[in-house]
Amino acid sequence: FPLQGREAKPRDIGLTMILDKGLGLNQTKDLLEIAANYIDFHKLSFGTSALYRPKVLEEKIELIKSYGIDIYPGGTYLEVAVTQGKLDEYLNRAKELGFTAIEVSDGTIELTSSLRSAIIKKAVDLEFKVLSEIGKKDKKKQFKMSKMIKQLKQDIDDGAYKVIVEARESGKGISIYNSEGELDEFKMEQLLLGAYDGNDIMWETPLKKQQVKFINALGSNVNLGNIAPSDILALESLRVGVRGDTFKTS
Amino acid sequence: FPLQGREAKPRDIGLTMILDKGLGLNQTKDLLEIAANYIDFHKLSFGTSALYRPKVLEEKIELIKSYGIDIYPGGTYLEVAVTQGKLDEYLNRAKELGFTAIEVSDGTIELTSSLRSAIIKKAVDLEFKVLSEIGKKDKKKQFKMSKMIKQLKQDIDDGAYKVIVEARESGKGISIYNSEGELDEFKMEQLLLGAYDGNDIMWETPLKKQQVKFINALGSNVNLGNIAPSDILALESLRVGVRGDTFKTS
Amino acid sequence: FPLQGREAKPRDIGLTMILDKGLGLNQTKDLLEIAANYIDFHKLSFGTSALYRPKVLEEKIELIKSYGIDIYPGGTYLEVAVTQGKLDEYLNRAKELGFTAIEVSDGTIELTSSLRSAIIKKAVDLEFKVLSEIGKKDKKKQFKMSKMIKQLKQDIDDGAYKVIVEARESGKGISIYNSEGELDEFKMEQLLLGAYDGNDIMWETPLKKQQVKFINALGSNVNLGNIAPSDILALESLRVGVRGDTFKTS
Repeated sequence: FPLQGREAKPRDIGLTMILDKGLGLNQTKDLLEIAANYIDFHKLSFGTSALYRPKVLEEKIELIKSYGIDIYPGGTYLEVAVTQGKLDEYLNRAKELGFTAIEVSDGTIELTSSLRSAIIKKAVDLEFKVLSEIGKKDKKKQFKMSKMIKQLKQDIDDGAYKVIVEARESGKGISIYNSEGELDEFKMEQLLLGAYDGNDIMWETPLKKQQVKFINALGSNVNLGNIAPSDILALESLRVGVRGDTFKTS
Repeated sequence: FPLQGREAKPRDIGLTMILDKGLGLNQTKDLLEIAANYIDFHKLSFGTSALYRPKVLEEKIELIKSYGIDIYPGGTYLEVAVTQGKLDEYLNRAKELGFTAIEVSDGTIELTSSLRSAIIKKAVDLEFKVLSEIGKKDKKKQFKMSKMIKQLKQDIDDGAYKVIVEARESGKGISIYNSEGELDEFKMEQLLLGAYDGNDIMWETPLKKQQVKFINALGSNVNLGNIAPSDILALESLRVGVRGDTFKTS
Repeated sequence: FPLQGREAKPRDIGLTMILDKGLGLNQTKDLLEIAANYIDFHKLSFGTSALYRPKVLEEKIELIKSYGIDIYPGGTYLEVAVTQGKLDEYLNRAKELGFTAIEVSDGTIELTSSLRSAIIKKAVDLEFKVLSEIGKKDKKKQFKMSKMIKQLKQDIDDGAYKVIVEARESGKGISIYNSEGELDEFKMEQLLLGAYDGNDIMWETPLKKQQVKFINALGSNVNLGNIAPSDILALESLRVGVRGDTFKTS
């Protein structure tokens, strides 16, 4: 009975990205069996992929890909590699392991605009889908709107598939969210207006109230990320209007 | 060494209902193997049951029933069906799939008292155990005590097995809880006084502090719902007095 | 690419203890396959071990031990046994079941200093690794620093392997944390100064901000406990500097 109009996979809008902090193989199988149709990107968060035994990691990557889901390591891992001067090694290793996408971020480090462009282009050349990310992880660093919009467009020009708006796992006190995780709608609108296309943006929305806000504001087919694996059916319920919060608006 | 006096299954008091947002088959097996004795009702929350592949859903329902646990789809799903004029289809499909219970709620929509009665009776006729629910999901809508009590008694008259007091997954700012999830004990007492029998009520207590409050106030064999699957042993520890919070009172 | 200097297993510093509220067998296998190298102690929290079917419990204990991880029942369970005058029965049963460690606490009950010593020594004689715990579960009871330090040293004298600083599952409003879960650094320093060796202490840090605080203050190889199983790779990422919060400091 759910709402009509929800885009089916494979799709370029209405994407859902999950943040996986270390699901085991059986848990991953369980998740995919239940919810593969509702997942487009699977992120092994921050540097966790460095902590798996290689055999387990490869098996996990294979499994996820077999369900038509893109998989990539968290952006912080790339930032560590850049800092250590090991970017090429990082990208080649990611290719070898079977990752299909790469996140390019400067949440913790500083990247010059030209280096950022170069990294995105290099990853695109290696046939990765590139998700770039805007925003700093440190709460003390400001989210300067004009700079963010410029970067967003530059990233798309450089070949990024989508540009992610950072919210971390907590969703609080960062980028477009205040310390309670409430959305600053003015900032959201500025980003939408500044982008070539609102669908170029993927919004990190770890908290349910953020998911509700975006679905009610931008519709079922908004791109949402940093979803906890255990929330994936709950999010899809919101998208298709079979949960109280979005039911009335559908 | 745990406390004596905890009711064993099958039981009509001391019921525990879990809220399942999308456990996979292996996770469900794991949960049941460990904790089936401590679960009486298994709710596939809101409309999530619409999002499973039918084969997986049927297997999951079979599995849960095989452990002597009642299983039912979330109330919002019924509300969607009612809104779309598909109540009979909904109930028949639920029967076919093997659900043993039905939740009748108006957390999001408005139901006239006579329609509510009719739905409950229809579900009872189809040999479902009926759990009705009182309270609105929207924080702005008031929880009018006299109306709630009237409805509670009417639902029992119409054949409901238990009447659930709504708290959603968050447990905050709704029905008998304030915005911090603290219980309004006066409201609790009014409901208990108003009911034919306090054991007719199942209290949604997603937060640990709420579980502690109710067990300390009403004893080990209070009916509690919206328990996270990962909290089921923790709750049973509270019930039997092997966790700090309820140990001293036992 | 992670940070060098992280101690490998088996180790006596840099220990991680997880709090398991009821993982099933498959989930446990999943966790161990992914993260066994990052876990030193596995706690079946509070009295949950009393709630397993014996066959499942024994299988779970065997499984965890086979990965070189110490396993023990939560301290509240021992407190219940002490209260019921069944300490010997408790320790013998724990031995039979295969537990390798014992937690000795008085989070809920009162233990005289001499009884506490006797229990620790008895458990040591039975060849358990003893983790003692300081601090009360009740928020209203004060955490008296001089008393805590005295107890800490006495426990080590009596043969305790490590002394845990209590924070419960919530990490808020208890011992060294305020009601928001913020660390009182002065108390932390007093404990460190008071101990024979700072590495005698294991800090319960259920919240990510607490883990970050301790790793940034005391280094990768601080002993941390009450970690949620789902956070284990996230914590190890913090320890080895591949997550934003600790990356800059490495």
